[in-house]
Amino acid sequence: MRGVVLHAPGDVRVEERDQPVIVEPTDAVIRLSATCVCGSDLWPYRGIERVKKPVPMGHEYVGIVEQVGSEVRTIRPGQFVVGSFFAADTPCEICRSGYQTSCVQRQPGAATGGQAEYTRVPLADGTLVATPDLPDDDLIPSLLAASDVLGTGWFGAVAAEVGPGKTVAVVGDGAVGLLGVLAARQLGAARIIAMSRHESRQKLALEFGATDIVTERGDEGVAQVKELTGGLGAHSVIEAVGTQESMMQAIGSTRPGGHVGFVGVSHGVEVPGGKLFYSHVHLHGGPAPVRRFLPELIELIYAGTINPGKVFDLTLPLDQAAEGYRAMDERRAIKALLRP
Amino acid sequence: MRGVVLHAPGDVRVEERDQPVIVEPTDAVIRLSATCVCGSDLWPYRGIERVKKPVPMGHEYVGIVEQVGSEVRTIRPGQFVVGSFFAADTPCEICRSGYQTSCVQRQPGAATGGQAEYTRVPLADGTLVATPDLPDDDLIPSLLAASDVLGTGWFGAVAAEVGPGKTVAVVGDGAVGLLGVLAARQLGAARIIAMSRHESRQKLALEFGATDIVTERGDEGVAQVKELTGGLGAHSVIEAVGTQESMMQAIGSTRPGGHVGFVGVSHGVEVPGGKLFYSHVHLHGGPAPVRRFLPELIELIYAGTINPGKVFDLTLPLDQAAEGYRAMDERRAIKALLRP
Repeated sequence: MRGVVLHAPGDVRVEERDQPVIVEPTDAVIRLSATCVCGSDLWPYRGIERVKKPVPMGHEYVGIVEQVGSEVRTIRPGQFVVGSFFAADTPCEICRSGYQTSCVQRQPGAATGGQAEYTRVPLADGTLVATPDLPDDDLIPSLLAASDVLGTGWFGAVAAEVGPGKTVAVVGDGAVGLLGVLAARQLGAARIIAMSRHESRQKLALEFGATDIVTERGDEGVAQVKELTGGLGAHSVIEAVGTQESMMQAIGSTRPGGHVGFVGVSHGVEVPGGKLFYSHVHLHGGPAPVRRFLPELIELIYAGTINPGKVFDLTLPLDQAAEGYRAMDERRAIKALLRP
Repeated sequence: MRGVVLHAPGDVRVEERDQPVIVEPTDAVIRLSATCVCGSDLWPYRGIERVKKPVPMGHEYVGIVEQVGSEVRTIRPGQFVVGSFFAADTPCEICRSGYQTSCVQRQPGAATGGQAEYTRVPLADGTLVATPDLPDDDLIPSLLAASDVLGTGWFGAVAAEVGPGKTVAVVGDGAVGLLGVLAARQLGAARIIAMSRHESRQKLALEFGATDIVTERGDEGVAQVKELTGGLGAHSVIEAVGTQESMMQAIGSTRPGGHVGFVGVSHGVEVPGGKLFYSHVHLHGGPAPVRRFLPELIELIYAGTINPGKVFDLTLPLDQAAEGYRAMDERRAIKALLRP
């Protein structure tokens, strides 16, 4: 089968790779209907995370179950499934508390790489959620978004305790930030301030429910959010970047007693304790337990209530994955969908 | 009047100072019945915080109202009152959300120093809470504890989302940590792990409701807490020190999805973003909004349900304040009460 391998920063290749097979009796193998490039794939692509050896890429995936191991109970061949980027067993105490991405058995969800024709998924019963039927083709981008970026933006909003009547600010206008806007809207926010400097992303933010746009960053961005909120800051702030600047922008934009939900994968961030202490904010985040939200998100997508697939502004055949990475790296595309 | 002034690290003097007077119409002047030395007073005493000029000390105080300004409405001369270390107006939006220590009008609660015979309290209606009557002398240590260390330990427990059935760990065996144990007990914790290496403090922790003692610190302390909690960590951890080691010990001792309540005043702490991200903990803390809890705490003290005054294991006349500082610095005393 064909699959994407990152050989070195900037060097993405689509290669002939071994067909995945069942290894553990709890595995499933699925034939991918769609996959995509993640903002977090750009960290090694840009050389910010080291690439020590060729790595099969991709952790966002939807597809049709091809085969299951002997101990898989609920997932069946022929089902259309939405995956999670980390595999989890779900009966453990941590999973039951809603933190499947810290499952005691946590491991990569697309064990052999998700940007491929097929992938092997460990702990299939816990990791995969089947859709009610084989979805129409136009639902597939949204279901694919649910497998990571939508679930991540949603967790950011939940971690930031977004709720009815609240003012929310979103730091970051990538797919996760934009879907954080969508989540905030669904969760009843009264006002949603999207922090974005890019016109096409501002447009999508407004479409997803943003009520205000702030183009400034850093201290100036914080000052703008304060000005829009009577000098106090937002109740809830979603941090969807993962840099020192974005984290400080998020903390600074939050009112005392407010909540920061941070879902940008942290790179080199150091939160100064004194600043955090006197900020009086709540800080919560980490790898989104997408699995917690998948049943609800699939329902909202099937009902046509949300259309998160709009974040895919570039669709390419799998063989042109390298162009997908390039377009996202150069910010020509928000997110690239790949069709195996 | 007599009052405590810190001239330089280690140099505490009790001096003749000006009698405080009403400055703003919202002020009160109170005659102090008792005051004490705070763990946070030791930071400048030890030279860890710079002492640029002589500073009047003290921010924990109870006493009798002597005089009020023309705009004070609820506090009256003759009342016995418990103070808060920050003054707050209470009608502002931040106060109403329970974060009086981030009040938009925040200022020191004992404006002229609380380790003295008299002090001036700004925004008296918001800052002071009157007791039902003039309390018996044996209640005074507990009421004094409510003005800071009890309220701070309590906030640590609330910020750590302590609740019925939960396992709680407490990092720090100073007065705040010990009263964090007491708070956890009152809030229904099933199991309370006190982290302490000092026998007298362990004894008080057990008296306040601790069920387990861990003497190890750092990574070994974390390993011990994990071992006591099925490898997962505690649901709720109270951080009551404020150093890098204690903060990392607190984060490491918390299970994914669990809560850290940090109330030790941060000194040189830098929380590594990546570690925080993958820890999946909730982090919340800061200067305790003691005012939020005072009415309830005063009730519990009057009812005899709690006796937080036990943290005072040394009582001295105000004139011997220097010995109180020394005893706490050398860890001969948990907390020194001063009688003006």
